[in-house]
Amino acid sequence: MQKPAIPKGTRDFSPLEMARRNYIFSTIRSVFSRFGFEQIETPAMELMSTLMGKYGEEGDKLLFRIQNSGEKANEAPEKGLRYDLTVPFARYVVQHREELQFPFRRYQIQPVWRADRPQKGRYREFYQCDVDVIGTDSLVNELELIQIIEEVYRRFGIRVCLKLNNRKILAGIAERIGEPDKLVDITVAIDKLDKIGLEKVNEEMKERGLSDEAIDKLQPILALSGTNGEKLETMAELLKESEVGTKGVEEMREVLRLCEIAGVTLPIELDLTLARGLNYYTGAIFEVKALDVTIGSITGGGRYDNLTGIFGLPGVSGVGVSFGADRIYDVLTELNAYPTTMTDATQVLFAAFGEKELEMAIRWAARLRREGINTEVYPSPAKMKKQMSYADGKKIPYVAIIGGDELAENRVMLKDMTTGEQKKVEVEELIRLLNE
Amino acid sequence: MQKPAIPKGTRDFSPLEMARRNYIFSTIRSVFSRFGFEQIETPAMELMSTLMGKYGEEGDKLLFRIQNSGEKANEAPEKGLRYDLTVPFARYVVQHREELQFPFRRYQIQPVWRADRPQKGRYREFYQCDVDVIGTDSLVNELELIQIIEEVYRRFGIRVCLKLNNRKILAGIAERIGEPDKLVDITVAIDKLDKIGLEKVNEEMKERGLSDEAIDKLQPILALSGTNGEKLETMAELLKESEVGTKGVEEMREVLRLCEIAGVTLPIELDLTLARGLNYYTGAIFEVKALDVTIGSITGGGRYDNLTGIFGLPGVSGVGVSFGADRIYDVLTELNAYPTTMTDATQVLFAAFGEKELEMAIRWAARLRREGINTEVYPSPAKMKKQMSYADGKKIPYVAIIGGDELAENRVMLKDMTTGEQKKVEVEELIRLLNE
Repeated sequence: MQKPAIPKGTRDFSPLEMARRNYIFSTIRSVFSRFGFEQIETPAMELMSTLMGKYGEEGDKLLFRIQNSGEKANEAPEKGLRYDLTVPFARYVVQHREELQFPFRRYQIQPVWRADRPQKGRYREFYQCDVDVIGTDSLVNELELIQIIEEVYRRFGIRVCLKLNNRKILAGIAERIGEPDKLVDITVAIDKLDKIGLEKVNEEMKERGLSDEAIDKLQPILALSGTNGEKLETMAELLKESEVGTKGVEEMREVLRLCEIAGVTLPIELDLTLARGLNYYTGAIFEVKALDVTIGSITGGGRYDNLTGIFGLPGVSGVGVSFGADRIYDVLTELNAYPTTMTDATQVLFAAFGEKELEMAIRWAARLRREGINTEVYPSPAKMKKQMSYADGKKIPYVAIIGGDELAENRVMLKDMTTGEQKKVEVEELIRLLNE
Repeated sequence: MQKPAIPKGTRDFSPLEMARRNYIFSTIRSVFSRFGFEQIETPAMELMSTLMGKYGEEGDKLLFRIQNSGEKANEAPEKGLRYDLTVPFARYVVQHREELQFPFRRYQIQPVWRADRPQKGRYREFYQCDVDVIGTDSLVNELELIQIIEEVYRRFGIRVCLKLNNRKILAGIAERIGEPDKLVDITVAIDKLDKIGLEKVNEEMKERGLSDEAIDKLQPILALSGTNGEKLETMAELLKESEVGTKGVEEMREVLRLCEIAGVTLPIELDLTLARGLNYYTGAIFEVKALDVTIGSITGGGRYDNLTGIFGLPGVSGVGVSFGADRIYDVLTELNAYPTTMTDATQVLFAAFGEKELEMAIRWAARLRREGINTEVYPSPAKMKKQMSYADGKKIPYVAIIGGDELAENRVMLKDMTTGEQKKVEVEELIRLLNE
């Protein structure tokens, strides 16, 4: 007999987990809609030609390839499972550009697959929630993504801090210290400042081939402190001779100014060490950290200027962020911050002693459901202990018990499963109580 | 340059299609919750050992197999994409049986993949919406599935008819005409009655090896007519010497009786020619047909007595139905029966003439969103024609225009995009109007 199992790195989601995940997704979706973003979906499978070469050499190795029986085992598969939502989005925009309104504001919540080695918190199948606007370079879009982040975490009750950087500032810095080609090396090293300290970062930059002079020039930037305004002033001064750097400082200033106009109260911290997805972003870079839980970034993103270029539509600027559903799940669990009652849960179970009582339960249940109450009928007049233990296990808050007396009186014995209290009620009162 | 495309048999879903699909899924989910069913999800990939041999030889050929880079091209893949939600559900129940409350009432809405030849209305990736209860043989479950079907189509505004059959009646018939082993041949032939007529059906049964005597005995059944009660009486008489047949008639009677108790008004038709999934169902068989649209069955299912046996948990009875989202989509489209306003849609777009006006739009938009209004801000003071055409294309019902006068007066010119009417309003009035 085969022992049931699932592929490693994948997961089943239980009813409780699904209720929580649905809460997360529906909250995020509702905020996206509040800002006028519309949902799209793309197929799980994309052509290998769409996927290959988009995620670097390492990424190509992590693609799951798909064979159908028409294909020989030694033929290269034509199709693969999507690796993220960004490349399918770019493909979508180009393929459907004639049908779309630009700026195109879309969100997408779907699973992605990566043949990564599974480990704690890393799965081979996981959901991404991406929200992007494409076809506009207005910084109002950066503002709106920040407002979305603020509103999502306000609804979740998770205190967060938004870290903000700008690729143009990083480019300006590399230019200013005379190492424009070493942008990546500089940021990789700076990125470790928190972890390994200034001395080790300087050592690493030297190993990566930066001149002593360049490293010297970088010191005021590494030591940057103060309010966002003070940091920006220092940067403006340092980068005043770099065109791209000055543009970066201006963009950042403008985003902060727009946040003030919109009344954003989310804490925002300029962080020049923030460099996620550097090869890809061209302007703002975002990252969100939870303040009360130790966990990696729970949302991130930025502006990109040439996402659709690979599919033949160059020069289209966009900006977007991705919410990490699995990490948000872990944060909400750790903070015990899920709503106490999930709206989809069963409110009352009818438990009947006999066949006639069961018929009464069926009648009443039909009535309750018409009144909008999520109602179950235990489907047979089983032992009361069994029926109560079912309600207990499913955490159903009320049980409406029907025995011979109740049947005769056309009432039910309503038991509050939390307090253990019970009282006899008529159908109208039952509806009133459950609707409270 | 690569021309963007997707694998054949797969689909992108546009914002409009997604809004409609979300309406379908959320309606169905809401009804499932009303009856106490809880959602689960299983991974897209299952082990090949879980999938193989469960769908017949033909089904095995239609499985998509998955390779990752760790696997050699000539190795048999260990994993495949799920082919339906039923086998993963059986696997789930057995794997998690210690954590579940029985009867276990679950629903599942996820895509499945089949390497079928794509053709009109048949896709390689499509969603299934399955609702099942497992671990109980009470016919109250059949009733509740019928109530769910009634409520789902009531909410959709689709007039339907439920066809009902019972595998035990079919077995009784085969027994009575002396051909108990020819059950499948008989039903396949009967199934064609509508299409090819009685004479051809009789011919086909002869070809399939049924004796003349058996075919003679079958004639009253083929000619069965009248109300459900009359049909049941005839069947009860014909099958009175068959134990299994009598059981089938009793089950059907009981289901109809329970429907009456619950006040079900859905038209139900006993249909002995209904034989879907015959090898699999052991009791009730359901099928739903739309009355006003010519299309195949839009929901179907039945009772099975040994779903989990293959995974080592024998003797667990269950019953369930599956809603066909793609066909429901087509029916709603043909009937033009989607709600006129989708709740997720943008209600108002702010269109600004200049930078200062845009700042005012940002302030007002923040206020409106706090009031629960789905609001967009056109992100730059582009030409008004462009902004209006964006609103038009996205079918946004109202545009709040801000020019120099409006800025000075702290009001907006609200344009009703349907009537073309416009008037100047203050923020409180705007909120009131949009909340109407």
